[in-house]
Amino acid sequence: MSHQPNLSTNWKKKIHEVIYGTHTPAGKLFDIILLIVIVYSIIIVMLESVPWIDKNYHTFLNISEWIVTVLFTLEYILRIISIRKPRTYVFSFFGIVDLLSTLPKYLSLLFVGSQYLTAFRALRLLRVFRILKLARFVGASNNLARALSASKTKVLVFVFFIIVISVLLGTVMYIVEGPENGFNSIPHSVYWTIVTLTTVGYGDISPQTALGQFLASLIMIIGYGIIAVPTGIVSAEYTSEMNRRNAGTDNGRACRTCGTEVLRKDADFCRICGSNLNED
Amino acid sequence: MSHQPNLSTNWKKKIHEVIYGTHTPAGKLFDIILLIVIVYSIIIVMLESVPWIDKNYHTFLNISEWIVTVLFTLEYILRIISIRKPRTYVFSFFGIVDLLSTLPKYLSLLFVGSQYLTAFRALRLLRVFRILKLARFVGASNNLARALSASKTKVLVFVFFIIVISVLLGTVMYIVEGPENGFNSIPHSVYWTIVTLTTVGYGDISPQTALGQFLASLIMIIGYGIIAVPTGIVSAEYTSEMNRRNAGTDNGRACRTCGTEVLRKDADFCRICGSNLNED
Amino acid sequence: MSHQPNLSTNWKKKIHEVIYGTHTPAGKLFDIILLIVIVYSIIIVMLESVPWIDKNYHTFLNISEWIVTVLFTLEYILRIISIRKPRTYVFSFFGIVDLLSTLPKYLSLLFVGSQYLTAFRALRLLRVFRILKLARFVGASNNLARALSASKTKVLVFVFFIIVISVLLGTVMYIVEGPENGFNSIPHSVYWTIVTLTTVGYGDISPQTALGQFLASLIMIIGYGIIAVPTGIVSAEYTSEMNRRNAGTDNGRACRTCGTEVLRKDADFCRICGSNLNED
Amino acid sequence: MSHQPNLSTNWKKKIHEVIYGTHTPAGKLFDIILLIVIVYSIIIVMLESVPWIDKNYHTFLNISEWIVTVLFTLEYILRIISIRKPRTYVFSFFGIVDLLSTLPKYLSLLFVGSQYLTAFRALRLLRVFRILKLARFVGASNNLARALSASKTKVLVFVFFIIVISVLLGTVMYIVEGPENGFNSIPHSVYWTIVTLTTVGYGDISPQTALGQFLASLIMIIGYGIIAVPTGIVSAEYTSEMNRRNAGTDNGRACRTCGTEVLRKDADFCRICGSNLNED
Repeated sequence: MSHQPNLSTNWKKKIHEVIYGTHTPAGKLFDIILLIVIVYSIIIVMLESVPWIDKNYHTFLNISEWIVTVLFTLEYILRIISIRKPRTYVFSFFGIVDLLSTLPKYLSLLFVGSQYLTAFRALRLLRVFRILKLARFVGASNNLARALSASKTKVLVFVFFIIVISVLLGTVMYIVEGPENGFNSIPHSVYWTIVTLTTVGYGDISPQTALGQFLASLIMIIGYGIIAVPTGIVSAEYTSEMNRRNAGTDNGRACRTCGTEVLRKDADFCRICGSNLNED
Repeated sequence: MSHQPNLSTNWKKKIHEVIYGTHTPAGKLFDIILLIVIVYSIIIVMLESVPWIDKNYHTFLNISEWIVTVLFTLEYILRIISIRKPRTYVFSFFGIVDLLSTLPKYLSLLFVGSQYLTAFRALRLLRVFRILKLARFVGASNNLARALSASKTKVLVFVFFIIVISVLLGTVMYIVEGPENGFNSIPHSVYWTIVTLTTVGYGDISPQTALGQFLASLIMIIGYGIIAVPTGIVSAEYTSEMNRRNAGTDNGRACRTCGTEVLRKDADFCRICGSNLNED
Repeated sequence: MSHQPNLSTNWKKKIHEVIYGTHTPAGKLFDIILLIVIVYSIIIVMLESVPWIDKNYHTFLNISEWIVTVLFTLEYILRIISIRKPRTYVFSFFGIVDLLSTLPKYLSLLFVGSQYLTAFRALRLLRVFRILKLARFVGASNNLARALSASKTKVLVFVFFIIVISVLLGTVMYIVEGPENGFNSIPHSVYWTIVTLTTVGYGDISPQTALGQFLASLIMIIGYGIIAVPTGIVSAEYTSEMNRRNAGTDNGRACRTCGTEVLRKDADFCRICGSNLNED
Repeated sequence: MSHQPNLSTNWKKKIHEVIYGTHTPAGKLFDIILLIVIVYSIIIVMLESVPWIDKNYHTFLNISEWIVTVLFTLEYILRIISIRKPRTYVFSFFGIVDLLSTLPKYLSLLFVGSQYLTAFRALRLLRVFRILKLARFVGASNNLARALSASKTKVLVFVFFIIVISVLLGTVMYIVEGPENGFNSIPHSVYWTIVTLTTVGYGDISPQTALGQFLASLIMIIGYGIIAVPTGIVSAEYTSEMNRRNAGTDNGRACRTCGTEVLRKDADFCRICGSNLNED
């Protein structure tokens, strides 16, 4: 692919500009059309699964599906040939998502049912962030992402505890209530415990014995108490992330002698080299 | 409307004072009566929809409805003629709400069912904030409004993620459970996913297969985890908003002698160098 | 009651010490016995309402009830005669609670059903805080109480908004779903909206139409979003309350010249009178 | 056990290294195998409770169970003989858990049903934290543990209030709805109140009368409001805990020249007077 004539390179460059770029009018138009087609294709897949709609409009939906699939396939091929290192794109998150958006429809010719996997197209919607590329949006996401990433370990530790607690309480409830009250097996009972701890509470299974209801009350109050933990973690991390930027410290000022940043607003001397910050 | 005699202007001024003003005794009385009539009219609309009440008291409710509607219409007309620029009022939030409070009743003569739209009168209740106009109430709302407005973008980003996740997980659950277990279609399945993610959990549909229950457990724990995110955002924004104003510091003022910033609002002397802050 | 002999006064003083005091061994013993009797009496009332228990142990439960009631009546009378200003006690929160703990049982002789009101005895349990009187408990409550009190106005504004939203959305759902899908009337529909907004989700009523389910999804996401608001308010108020005491300010230090409190830890000069804080 | 020959001591030392140590390759391998066996044994117990799996694979599951139980028993014995003070281990948290992991299976020979208690093996999973011993994990848990421990008293006060409120509101609902609407007794009604307050909402019982639904709405809004309290407490405590350590300030250190406190941990010079903090 390296011995291409100049003409072809120019042609590729243009396509690259339209598909990957968001600055030229053509690039913007492409992105907006892309978004509309993605939303349209998701709606089509959804409607296809509704029996009475599929029955009445099957041909229309099927043709729509194929048109969208062909368009996405073309886009995928153009994306690959218009960049220098196609490998990077193909194995990137969006590269895989783009492949998963077209493949299932072709597979549906071979396997019944696989066309529903086209709903993975919803992941393509995440492109909207790249397209809108509004400073504030990206800022908001970055801030959030940093706080979430800082909370990650703690939230994992927490989820691990929840699973251990659910297995234990689920088993206890199985022993107390038993299959005759809908707690058919320990896994089923663990499932019920998670439904209760997370305050979802379907009510498809619910304790019938007095002891079971008493234990369930305890589980609920525990769940109510521990719902506070991940929230507290994220709040605290996010507050701390914001404080680090907004309050107490003056990020715009740096020591002229040693270059130390993040100085407190009331500092007169650099805390690292001791030089006077107010001198010029 | 500009060639009105002085008398008429005076008359209008008086009405304006009563309807829009909250300082004169007449204005206060008007506002209190208005609030009572609004609450009364909402109760009437509600009771009208209860079959056995409507059956027994239909005439009374209907007459009440018409009296309230006529009163609201009169008020609406008076509001328009008593101000200089009626256009501003008519197209303001409260102007539209006031129109929507009267119109549906008249439309009910033409279209059956539209009288229920009169419940939009509930929006008129928001006037209570204007009427009470207690400094602390407005302060509370302002503070809150600023924090919510600062959180807006982040919460929107978050809601967008929830929708993408719901479409994906909803489709997976549709494939796993299928119409035979109540997951009739992808939109229905997405609806179920939102019911579960938000921990509402009606239980009208609930997973029946082992794999479905396992996935549902994952969705619940995810939902439990992400409930923390908007809460964390609002908490952090609100804390930061409060710190900025209430923590008693005045960030805009700095000591002229030593340059110390973050001074308390009630400070007369710099806490670092002891010089008088009020001297010039 | 003012011409009592000295002997009687002493006798009253002793009773006062035992009933109201918590420092003497007799006072402590009294409080512990009181707590046990309160818990016992609540359990009795609860068990009485369980049909099969009441059937088998009716006499025992009834006698227990009467013994407890007589004991509480005696205590109530002793509380009144042993203090100087009985009026203060009788109309205090605990005075009313204590009366409500005995009265319903006597009324049950006249009116069937009123004996269940004795469950108001649960309020007597709040005495535990007074009895335990552990510094840390009171501290915890005080801190909490102050934060909750600071959040009060904002939470009220918020609850008001929820009610307005519920009335509006409830009416819309009534129009969309109608009585044929379980939304029997507007008040019933408003009830459903509150059940959904608060993420309780009983599932006794749930939307059946596609549009209804779409709207319900919106309501849930709104509910999910606004659950963040009161939590954020309380978090922020509580953080600020803690900051005010723990960080930045030194509550233990006061200016020796003018007595100003809540000085910043790094302050060298009083911010009010300008005198040197480090001088002695 | 004190007159053992040197050989035996060496042998014990080696076992101790493998079982308790995590630094040698053998110790790591042991821990990983242990974790796999624990997870395997929990899955076995769970599957055993599913009727159709137990029916088809009973012999396999039972043999697996016995193999795991014998392995755990061996491990338990080795743990006891390989340390100097077995008493400390036997009565430690993990010592009791390890015993509870083996005992129920032996008891199942005598008592039917007790084999399910082997699910307490789930508690053994908590060993994972000791094994992984990743600094960040332990750090995360420590931070969290300290914040939770600081919140403990407040959360207990709060849980106590919830119980008092539930007893009161449960009784009121019992009087309003009565046994004919599913509120069979006061304890049952209190159970329903907890289900509602914690926003679980099974829907197995739900108010049927208008007054009951109105009261339930109030309970839900109260529940919605008070869910904010424990979350707020944990958030605030955790934020404060983080500020104390991470915000980069060292509260224990003060400038020797001017007495400035709240110095950043990396500060070499006082930010107020510029003197060297490391000089003596």
